[in-house]
Amino acid sequence: MHGLISAFEVSEGARAEVVAALVEGSRGMPGNLSYVVAEDVENAGVVWVTELWESEEAHRASLALPEVQEAIAKARPHLRGMRTRAVTRPVAGADP
Amino acid sequence: MHGLISAFEVSEGARAEVVAALVEGSRGMPGNLSYVVAEDVENAGVVWVTELWESEEAHRASLALPEVQEAIAKARPHLRGMRTRAVTRPVAGADP
Repeated sequence: MHGLISAFEVSEGARAEVVAALVEGSRGMPGNLSYVVAEDVENAGVVWVTELWESEEAHRASLALPEVQEAIAKARPHLRGMRTRAVTRPVAGADP
Repeated sequence: MHGLISAFEVSEGARAEVVAALVEGSRGMPGNLSYVVAEDVENAGVVWVTELWESEEAHRASLALPEVQEAIAKARPHLRGMRTRAVTRPVAGADP
């Protein structure tokens, strides 16, 4: 399994739009096990995305999907930087 | 919904033990929607935990569970610091 944890810094007032674009573009991606978009509670300019993928290849392939390309195009004008970007090896997920 | 994203720094060689303790102690916690333990690929001394909870209260209550207390006791001697600790408001999760 392949995991990604990202914290995007977005321009003031644009968070809702970036969140909507990321959620919209992340439906039904082949090989995706989880894609969670979340607002940072303490920092209004940060959006967290935590992802679980069957494989690194599945994630890489997703970047070519039209819906994902569209989401990236919508979000990019509002992105100010990447506060956190971790590649992980998920060991276990206690999904009850 | 309530989210937590944490990156723990652990002492050299202790990561597997910390991961095992966290996985073991996180089964069947009331109100928990997801609890993923992952190794940072680029940094052998970092463990990521991403959590989704029905509420902040559910998370707080879990800290009193015997299994969680036991996991914390096992992991604590190996913890060197908290690299990341974010409280989040999950907006959507595209669980396919």
